[in-house]
Amino acid sequence: MTFILHPTLAADTVFVAKSGGVQILMMDDARYFWVILVPETEAQELHDLDSQIAASLWAIIHNFGRALKQHCNADKINSAAIGNIVPQLHFHIIARHHGDTDWPNPVWGHGQPVPMANAQKAARLAVAQSWAGNV
Amino acid sequence: MTFILHPTLAADTVFVAKSGGVQILMMDDARYFWVILVPETEAQELHDLDSQIAASLWAIIHNFGRALKQHCNADKINSAAIGNIVPQLHFHIIARHHGDTDWPNPVWGHGQPVPMANAQKAARLAVAQSWAGNV
Repeated sequence: MTFILHPTLAADTVFVAKSGGVQILMMDDARYFWVILVPETEAQELHDLDSQIAASLWAIIHNFGRALKQHCNADKINSAAIGNIVPQLHFHIIARHHGDTDWPNPVWGHGQPVPMANAQKAARLAVAQSWAGNV
Repeated sequence: MTFILHPTLAADTVFVAKSGGVQILMMDDARYFWVILVPETEAQELHDLDSQIAASLWAIIHNFGRALKQHCNADKINSAAIGNIVPQLHFHIIARHHGDTDWPNPVWGHGQPVPMANAQKAARLAVAQSWAGNV
């Protein structure tokens, strides 16, 4: 199978790394440090993942949730697989803070991403790639 | 440790079952078949769960996601741990359909739950308890 990333995900994100059959992406959004995990599979639901890739995904969710919480001094990590608009299975991990743009609402369905400046993008990319090395 | 369910979760849900240290609850909401999983732990983030209860939680997420998808003939399962308002770790699994009340938006932060009639509550409770027996 040749895996092709959904064009909406490709347009909205920056590639970070690949680990255990899972693409690790970062939303191009200055408002939030927002990671998106895409298992390279045709499954559209978490329960359709085979056990090996599911184990990879959960390990990355834990690893990146912990890293984002610490790095961003986040008040809460928001984690979700929704996919009502983009059906390709993708899992969000977002660092949230009291008083951020959408707090306490979820970010999905509220507002529009604000593209990152190049320096911010490079800085976040470097740190996210360092976490991927620890997965 | 005596685990005490957060009062907001207690008020908004119906108890279904307990499995592997995880309380399985159902939102009292006629609009959606909406399951909430609450690990009996003080962890507030997925990455803070110990490995045994994390494994229970992921197994229940897969089992209930699959069951909800089939039973409701759902177009999509929405899965999330958010917790911006209720900090006690809780994981949502919701059966969604094209054209439902909030489609394609997430349900969180949109509208108010509609309490179930008794017959609907009893029917959903029975089926959810049967799934819990399969966890």
